[in-house]
Parts: sequence; C-alpha cells; structure tokens
Amino acid sequence: MAVNLPVPDPSGLHPVRGVEIGIAMAGVRKAGRNDLTVISLAEGSAAAGVFTANRFCAAPVQVCVRHLQTGSAVRALVINTGNANAGTGEDGLARAMSVCRVLADRMDVPTEHVLPFSTGVIMETLPNDRIEAALPSALAERRADHWAQAAEAIMTTDTVPKAASRQVEIGGHIVTVTGIAKGAGMIRPNMATMLAFVATDAVIAPELLQALVREAADESFNRITVDGDTSTNDSFVLVATQCAGHERITRLDSPQGNALRDAIVAVSRQLAQAIVRDGEGASKFITVQVDGGRTTDECRQVSYAIAHSPLVKTAFFASDPNLGRILAAVGYAGIADLDQSTIDLYLDDVHVATRGGRHPAYREEDGARVMKQSEITVRVDLHRGPSTTTVWTCDFSYDYVRINADYRS
Amino acid sequence: MAVNLPVPDPSGLHPVRGVEIGIAMAGVRKAGRNDLTVISLAEGSAAAGVFTANRFCAAPVQVCVRHLQTGSAVRALVINTGNANAGTGEDGLARAMSVCRVLADRMDVPTEHVLPFSTGVIMETLPNDRIEAALPSALAERRADHWAQAAEAIMTTDTVPKAASRQVEIGGHIVTVTGIAKGAGMIRPNMATMLAFVATDAVIAPELLQALVREAADESFNRITVDGDTSTNDSFVLVATQCAGHERITRLDSPQGNALRDAIVAVSRQLAQAIVRDGEGASKFITVQVDGGRTTDECRQVSYAIAHSPLVKTAFFASDPNLGRILAAVGYAGIADLDQSTIDLYLDDVHVATRGGRHPAYREEDGARVMKQSEITVRVDLHRGPSTTTVWTCDFSYDYVRINADYRS
Repeated sequence: MAVNLPVPDPSGLHPVRGVEIGIAMAGVRKAGRNDLTVISLAEGSAAAGVFTANRFCAAPVQVCVRHLQTGSAVRALVINTGNANAGTGEDGLARAMSVCRVLADRMDVPTEHVLPFSTGVIMETLPNDRIEAALPSALAERRADHWAQAAEAIMTTDTVPKAASRQVEIGGHIVTVTGIAKGAGMIRPNMATMLAFVATDAVIAPELLQALVREAADESFNRITVDGDTSTNDSFVLVATQCAGHERITRLDSPQGNALRDAIVAVSRQLAQAIVRDGEGASKFITVQVDGGRTTDECRQVSYAIAHSPLVKTAFFASDPNLGRILAAVGYAGIADLDQSTIDLYLDDVHVATRGGRHPAYREEDGARVMKQSEITVRVDLHRGPSTTTVWTCDFSYDYVRINADYRS
Repeated sequence: MAVNLPVPDPSGLHPVRGVEIGIAMAGVRKAGRNDLTVISLAEGSAAAGVFTANRFCAAPVQVCVRHLQTGSAVRALVINTGNANAGTGEDGLARAMSVCRVLADRMDVPTEHVLPFSTGVIMETLPNDRIEAALPSALAERRADHWAQAAEAIMTTDTVPKAASRQVEIGGHIVTVTGIAKGAGMIRPNMATMLAFVATDAVIAPELLQALVREAADESFNRITVDGDTSTNDSFVLVATQCAGHERITRLDSPQGNALRDAIVAVSRQLAQAIVRDGEGASKFITVQVDGGRTTDECRQVSYAIAHSPLVKTAFFASDPNLGRILAAVGYAGIADLDQSTIDLYLDDVHVATRGGRHPAYREEDGARVMKQSEITVRVDLHRGPSTTTVWTCDFSYDYVRINADYRS
C-alpha cells in the first residue's frame, strides 16, 4: 500500500568502507524473523546523532546520548525491533546497558563505543537475555553488502524496507553515503526522527558531525509527519568511518564539505520521504509548501496544522476537494495576527482560493482532478513575508485505524 | 452510535420566558429538511458570546461580533445549517448581512439586534435568497416549546440532537436555563465552541453576561475535543430575556449570581459533553484528568496531547490497553523540564504506570477490563505542582474516516 515506494534494489546500495552488518533472529517479540542488527564500524569511526524531544525518551536513547557525551568515537550500533524499551524506568536502562556491555566485551571495545537502539511496543520489558544470546550469530554473519537486509530487519509496521545510497567524488576519491530508516506510525519527528542510520566513509573532522546530522535532520526527518505523534525512540545517527582515503574535511563551507553535505541531505531526505510514503494506511503522498511567511517558524506552524488535520487528511483519502478544510487549518495554526483576506491556496497548478475566499475561476472539477493523483502539492501563500517551508505527509485512511487498532494483537 | 446519549425528552426542556422558536425548510443544501431556525427574544433581552479563535472565522461570526460590539441588546438569532458561509470573503459577509437585514425588517427591530449563525460545508456560497424566502414561515411557526425541534434543525453530522435544561429558584421565582448545541466533528473549541445557544429568563445586569459566558465556556466547551480541528464557525451565545420577575442580579459573587452561574455551567457542560458523546465515529467517552501540574496551562497541554493523539484514540477504539501510547503523548506534550521518573498513570481505578515505568502490580487483564467500558477516565499525576484540569474526548474509529471521507457526497 506504500505510495510510489519500490523495495530498494540491493545492488544500488553501495557498501561503505569500514561498515559491516550482521543480522540475527533473537525472537524479541516473534520467533522466526530477523529482529537484531549489529552494525560494526572500523576503528577511528566517529558518530553524531539527534534524538527524540519526547520527555518519555526510551532507555536506549538515554544510553546513546550518554555514550556520545563521552566522545564521538563509535565501534558498533545494535538495533532490535519488536520492543521499544520505552516507559520502562530504571529497569529498562539496566537492560539496554547490559546489551551494550555484552556486545562490547565480544568485540573487545569500550562499552561507551556501542550505541543501542530499540523500536516496537512501548512499556514492555526488553528481553535482553534473548538479544544477548543472539549477538554472536549476528557478529558471525557480518557482511559489507547487508544494507538491504538491515533495512528489513529494523521494520515494525513498515510495509517496505527503506534504504538510500549516493556516491560523490571528493579529492579524487569516491565517497559513499548509505543509510537505512524505519518508521510508518508515531511519526512527527521533533528535532529527531524515527530510527535512521546514515554511514559514510568520508574522512571528516569528528567535531563537524553534529552540525551535519542536525542540518540533515532539519532538511529531512524534521519535515515529515504521519500522525503527529512524536515517538519515544526517534534516533538519527550519522557515522563517518574515515576510510575513503581523501584529504580530511575540516570545514563544512568548503567544496568538499558541500559535496558531502549534499549527499547526506539527499540520502536523509529520500529516507524521510520513504517513511511518509509508507505511512500507516497511506494512499497519497502530500507535499505541503507554505510561502510568504514572516518567519520559517510561522510557515512551519501553518504547514503542520494542515499536515496534522484529520479532516484535511481524510479529504485527501476520499479524493474530495473539500478545500475549505485546508483554509480552516491555516486559520487555527496559531498565528494571532493572520489576515485571511491576503491568503492564496493552490492545489498543484490549480488556484483554489484567493483573498480568503474561493477563486472566481476555480472549478470543482479542477480540484477533483488533482485530488485523484497519488502525489499532490498543497501550496499556501500567506503574503506577509519572505520565508518558506515544506513538509511531507500522507493521507488518513481506514487502514490507519485498522493498523493501529490491531497493532498488538 | 453516540455514546450513552439519549435523544432529549422534549418535556424536560423547559421553555424560557421571552423566547420563541420558529423553524422552516429553506433548502439550503438539501430539500425537505428543517434547516432554518429563528429564535426571537423579548424586548429588553441581552446577549454575550464567545467565538472561534480561528483566523479564518466565518462571515456570520464576524457579523455577530460586530453586532455585539454595538451593545448587548438582542432580539433574534437566525441559524442555518447546510452551509457554513466560511472561506467566502467579502461576498460572504454581504450575504450574512442581507439575512440579518431581511429578518430585522420583518420584525421591525434594528439590524444590529439580529445575530446570524451558519454551520455546514466551508467555502461554498451561502444561498441567502432561499434563507430569506423561508424567514416568514419560520416567524409564523414560532412557539415557546420548540427547543427540541431547534436542536434537531441545527444538526449537521450530529446523530443525536443536543439540548439541556435546568431550573433554579432565585428570590422566590423560578428561573429557567435551557440550551441547544450542535457539533460532532471539527471540534477543538478554542476560546469558543461549535454552535451553542443557552437562554435564561433571569434578570441580570447585561454587563455581567460576558464574564458569565466566558466562564461557562471555560468549564464546558473549552474542555472538549473530537479531532483537534478548530472550526471556523464556533459560537456560543448566552441570552438573558430578563423575564423571570426576580430582583435584578448585579453581582456574580452573590448567592443569586452563584445559583444562576451553576445552572448555566451545568447546562453548558451537558451540551459540551453531548458533543463529545456524539463525536464523529465515537464509540467511547473518555475523561482525561491531569493532576499535579505546576499550572493549569501545563495540565491542559498534557491533557490535550493525550486527547488528540491518533494512536491513543485508536487504542481506545480497539479496547487495547496499549498504554505506553499515553505515556508517549505525555512526553511530547511540550513541557520541556518534565521528569518521566515522577509520573503516575491510572485507568479508572487501575494503577498502570509509576515512576515512568509499568507499575509492578499492573496486570494487562486489569487494563483490558477498563478499556472495554464505554466510559473511561484516564488520570495522569505529574507530581510537580497543585494544578489540575479535565478534558473530555472520544475514541477514533473507522467511522470517523468514513464520515469525513463521505461528508460532501
């Protein structure tokens, strides 16, 4: 049911020098599925991450943040699906730490160089014993070309694995950026994302990574929403293995820095849009662009009001050009001095409303034509300033309710 | 499908001295249904209202606000269903004014003593000619005991008419408070409500009415949500016909003022809860109580985060005690310094979570037992202050999607 989202072609997912991926069946929630992924990283690798703003952030997120506070050095990511280890208090923290410790001992690296991630049901006890028992087989299975399998092994309600890859030339060397992500519901990243991992073999000063991951998040995962629910486990980690052989990048505002950033943003954005395309019950991919705001923040407020409105989302599901619902959402977005008489609304190329009312030339059949498409751009022009922003979302269907009513059964 | 919401018994809706109600078929959207209501008020009646905070507020709302700015005197309310006259620009304003003018001329009262209200589809032209043509028959049909019929004539996607009535004794005289409301979707009143009209024959200084209607709204309509969409047409008007014969109330903090306020709050709250019970697709009535906040505002933030979460609402629909979703909503409610380790969560009498994790004594079957009920109280204790608040909402079902995907067809 995902919207124009093909399963990634494994041959298009370039291995990243210094990265090996092993997968195993730990039986976290269900037997017989790959639910444990270990990503091991060459010595000298550095990482940075952005994490959920949810105050109920999960135990693994708290451990990740602590480990990254001790320095950017990282040697392994360990990811389980089936259980989020969130809302689990002190006991959850101990279990996340235990997984890190067991893996670190096996790899003979410091515990704080292991970053743990969990996704799945909230408020249930993590079966860390089963995870730890499966670590040896995951380590034994490691391969450089396991990206597609990893994308599959981290899924929960996703229907399509999500992976993206780019290569750029930097200083005469090919630099690879490859990433995976999971997520379909509880998606309204706030300064962070669902689970996403992007690795590059670029040689880059570790202190630049935090700015880079933040910028990539702002251009990708921080612009999507499925249902407005910010997850307890959102994590987006960028890893640089430093293996590509080119001269070290020490500034982001250099040609080399720009080339790398563009590749990372492109991979991140493709992954973020893949999450929306696979949004629970999604049948349409909606781009909401708000122009003419005084600030980017107010553009964001308006775009999220539209993207979160259940009434707007059900109208998209029904292909019903009930476009007054979009104006209503603009009106309640929280801009106190908004003047409805200056506002224009477009659906793709169709000018629907002007000066707060229906456009004289607007015909219902033009709106209906656009609403039938699987990809639609809503554009609102506030005509009160120079700022603009874009967010991506999906429609709201029977299947969203079915999926979320059935999720645990 | 409404949750424990019987059709009001007409004999329980006490007429209000000085109020007469006439109903007609104007054919606003569909032929053959009562869609026009005129409520005429005795000379000397005073009114006050609170209206939508949506910046795309509808033409009739703008006219109401203007008319009430000229003074509290009011002689008629005119309400149509089928068309909201919202998102209609200058043309919509002219049409709303035209309806007022035609009715005022017929009744021989000033135009600014008529308050117009519209509800229905947004961004379509109001057929004011058909409304004006039906005004004479509505006026001719006026009766004091037409409250139940009026409750029905203002419905849109409502499945049950909403009306409530109370009587209190003030200074040896019986004072009546009777009201009606409509609303089932696009419900997240913000400083206002959907359409609600409460009338009393109390004798009260007109300058007290604004404080009274604001307080009644804060205790009722400003505590409900169905889907988080704030309507363009929310209006809550309180009318006092001054006909009850008791000594004039000049202070709200008097025994007489308190008695009247309590009756008005009780009627308003019953109407507000009726809107939630009839929420689009609702199968459960949920009370969300947040205790222990530093301020009422932060309690409200948390309670609305829970009440708006599609994931929480679908879990209620499914009777699935997937209660981690409630913790996740608490976590993203926007309280920056919230400490998850202090939080308790209860479902009715069941203690679900403590210190940010599952309560040791919590058993899934206890959660499941409560989740099966048609009325459920979620209580969160933040343990960080003395404030508390309560909001009412409903679950989120297949039928919400069906109703809103089909609304215009």
